[in-house]
Amino acid sequence: MLFLARMDVHFPESMTQEVMADYQAREKAYSGDLQSRGIMKAIWRVVGEYANYSIFDVNDHDELHSILGGFPMFKYMDVKITPLAKHPNALEYYLFD
Amino acid sequence: MLFLARMDVHFPESMTQEVMADYQAREKAYSGDLQSRGIMKAIWRVVGEYANYSIFDVNDHDELHSILGGFPMFKYMDVKITPLAKHPNALEYYLFD
Amino acid sequence: MLFLARMDVHFPESMTQEVMADYQAREKAYSGDLQSRGIMKAIWRVVGEYANYSIFDVNDHDELHSILGGFPMFKYMDVKITPLAKHPNALEYYLFD
Amino acid sequence: MLFLARMDVHFPESMTQEVMADYQAREKAYSGDLQSRGIMKAIWRVVGEYANYSIFDVNDHDELHSILGGFPMFKYMDVKITPLAKHPNALEYYLFD
Amino acid sequence: MLFLARMDVHFPESMTQEVMADYQAREKAYSGDLQSRGIMKAIWRVVGEYANYSIFDVNDHDELHSILGGFPMFKYMDVKITPLAKHPNALEYYLFD
Amino acid sequence: MLFLARMDVHFPESMTQEVMADYQAREKAYSGDLQSRGIMKAIWRVVGEYANYSIFDVNDHDELHSILGGFPMFKYMDVKITPLAKHPNALEYYLFD
Amino acid sequence: MLFLARMDVHFPESMTQEVMADYQAREKAYSGDLQSRGIMKAIWRVVGEYANYSIFDVNDHDELHSILGGFPMFKYMDVKITPLAKHPNALEYYLFD
Amino acid sequence: MLFLARMDVHFPESMTQEVMADYQAREKAYSGDLQSRGIMKAIWRVVGEYANYSIFDVNDHDELHSILGGFPMFKYMDVKITPLAKHPNALEYYLFD
Amino acid sequence: MLFLARMDVHFPESMTQEVMADYQAREKAYSGDLQSRGIMKAIWRVVGEYANYSIFDVNDHDELHSILGGFPMFKYMDVKITPLAKHPNALEYYLFD
Amino acid sequence: MLFLARMDVHFPESMTQEVMADYQAREKAYSGDLQSRGIMKAIWRVVGEYANYSIFDVNDHDELHSILGGFPMFKYMDVKITPLAKHPNALEYYLFD
Repeated sequence: MLFLARMDVHFPESMTQEVMADYQAREKAYSGDLQSRGIMKAIWRVVGEYANYSIFDVNDHDELHSILGGFPMFKYMDVKITPLAKHPNALEYYLFD
Repeated sequence: MLFLARMDVHFPESMTQEVMADYQAREKAYSGDLQSRGIMKAIWRVVGEYANYSIFDVNDHDELHSILGGFPMFKYMDVKITPLAKHPNALEYYLFD
Repeated sequence: MLFLARMDVHFPESMTQEVMADYQAREKAYSGDLQSRGIMKAIWRVVGEYANYSIFDVNDHDELHSILGGFPMFKYMDVKITPLAKHPNALEYYLFD
Repeated sequence: MLFLARMDVHFPESMTQEVMADYQAREKAYSGDLQSRGIMKAIWRVVGEYANYSIFDVNDHDELHSILGGFPMFKYMDVKITPLAKHPNALEYYLFD
Repeated sequence: MLFLARMDVHFPESMTQEVMADYQAREKAYSGDLQSRGIMKAIWRVVGEYANYSIFDVNDHDELHSILGGFPMFKYMDVKITPLAKHPNALEYYLFD
Repeated sequence: MLFLARMDVHFPESMTQEVMADYQAREKAYSGDLQSRGIMKAIWRVVGEYANYSIFDVNDHDELHSILGGFPMFKYMDVKITPLAKHPNALEYYLFD
Repeated sequence: MLFLARMDVHFPESMTQEVMADYQAREKAYSGDLQSRGIMKAIWRVVGEYANYSIFDVNDHDELHSILGGFPMFKYMDVKITPLAKHPNALEYYLFD
Repeated sequence: MLFLARMDVHFPESMTQEVMADYQAREKAYSGDLQSRGIMKAIWRVVGEYANYSIFDVNDHDELHSILGGFPMFKYMDVKITPLAKHPNALEYYLFD
Repeated sequence: MLFLARMDVHFPESMTQEVMADYQAREKAYSGDLQSRGIMKAIWRVVGEYANYSIFDVNDHDELHSILGGFPMFKYMDVKITPLAKHPNALEYYLFD
Repeated sequence: MLFLARMDVHFPESMTQEVMADYQAREKAYSGDLQSRGIMKAIWRVVGEYANYSIFDVNDHDELHSILGGFPMFKYMDVKITPLAKHPNALEYYLFD
């Protein structure tokens, strides 16, 4: 099943550059792994914002919550998800296996 | 360039089933053509709503507005677009040629 | 998978009492069938509003959209769905088979 | 009487992991007790968010406020409740004794 | 149990003065009866708006929804209710028997 | 003149239990005095929230602002007031002397 | 007592120019009378909108609601009022007798 | 030219009473000077809130921004301005020289 | 003085293509004249919406309201204006004479 | 391609005047450079707010995000961008080369 996610990141003012860089490195590794495994089918930057839109393909809600909750920066993210279905006008079921 | 679009459709109560079906048929043909030409890279149904999320890949804003304004149902749609850029954690530039 | 849905109904002023009663009768039959089949696990009235909260248990998003779109009053409803997962503090996975 | 509650948790940045874990352990015990006693009839995780939807069955508003205010994490929660009634299309009065 | 209700009235433009007056007369009778029976404990006009705040004392949610749905003008009203409990600083449980 | 007030309290995370208890004790005394003097005609807890709805009967706006600004917890409260008038369907002018 | 009011006017599409002009003429007369009598202390146009901000000086809420409800265009207006008090930094109590 | 301004003040929790009193004293002097010079034509307290509505008469936008930015408490204020024009129903151009 | 305006157009469903085309032709002429006279300094289409952002340079608020109110499609437009001042980082006062 | 950007700045209370001044100096240099290079075509102050509206002319979204992310004060800014196209009523394509 496909989900569109929007994630907005808000780091606290008190976070040091080193801690922030560490979070970002772990986030990148985690995100890359999800992409390699075909769970995160796409991710884009929202222009001008510390935010992304991404597409997830998972088997159920418990798996999705576990994946989202596992993001290293999860506690600093506002996440909103939207369930997606096949569109009647779509030539194919995009990004869906 | 990539854009995420959300389109919500609101038909007037007075529209007959025949007129509605005609709009939907023309919309489907127009949408299919955009997909075939690689302009609309993806489209999904928002579950439970008469709405879609779609991804457009266009050369500039004038082309995008012309394409959106050309939808047969444009006058009955609320359209909101979000410019997308490559995400630093993305393994590839998804849906972008 | 479980989804919480909120549905708000807005009938047009021009609808006659007979047409409205017919919609409501067909809605009731459709809703009852979904409940009997274990797809709609629960439905409650929002006090003071022509609206409900309901719980759906479906296999995927396409099934859910098809079910929601099949409601006789779908064109008069605003539907918002929220994916639900098992809560870590829950003694059981409520309303989920 | 039934109430739908949505609770969103916001811990302060300064809270240590130990304090947080202690809050969560006490919350789990409190929640489990409410479920065992038939007061909290259901609880689910909102996918992607540190939030839940839950169903309460109480005798009156004073009891409900006392129960909600007794959550160990109450001061870190935004709670919104919605009174629920029996829906005319419901085959039974779900989660209500 | 006490509930605060806010009701906003929106009549359609096409309604004649006679129909409107008839609705208002029946509304007044219905409201007066609820007050006489101690169900509607208070009602005030929101200054400058076709709206009221009112206080209801009912036994349960099904009774309250039945009462609200019985207002002659219910289909033209937006109703929002807020459950009220005894305040710890209150010298008495106001408007509650 | 009658006003409906909604007050939401937000204490800072850094406030100690002792300071908080002191604020609450002074608030209770202040609130009790206003009730005894017939200025605060009613106060209820909003179920599930650190908030109240209350009814004030004052002579003018300067008196009301002075009273509200005098609450010991005023700097931690969001206050919204709504002027109330007699409702044409009211059997009496509730809570108004 | 002083109140700031914002009034937004929304005429239905079906209203003829003649009816609209008649409403506007009666509104102007009514407004002029309120100004002459010192009840409406000021009125300004919100630039770019069919709306005004105005200041009323009345004795109580019932008088204010009666005055606002008496506007010929009241049924086409959204009215929001804000009670005003003397500001501690004000050199005088502006527009207040 | 006239502008309606609404200013909401939010002081940080860490500010001492002395610093706050100093800000307020300087604010009062600054505000009084603007009133004496006919630039701030009026100011009122919003009842129940640490906020004001005020009327400014300035020659242009650069002057207005300079004046607003010069408020001692500017960094703690949310300011929203609304341009005002003469209303066609106004007997005079209120507060405008 | 400069103002940023956003205008959203909403035509009623009942308007014929001929009437719409006539409105649009008159709008174009009116808009072109404002541009030629240096009053409307710029106008752009909001991509995907029947809306524009535009920049006006006028002498005062009464002139601006008169100009905006004179748009042939004014009654079908939602207009929101934002006063602009010279930015301290600007190399010049853009679009300002 | 043209984009309208609105940027709102929120500095933390703990920032010293020296750090703030340094940010502002670097921001001014960065902004000036973008203007000199024809990338930022215009920038204005929003009257009464620590915010700007600005116009960017860039080749694609990745360039724009890189430019916006490069602002020295980016982490303290909320940025919202709106893609702009040529308006059919425009006499020229304003601020576009």
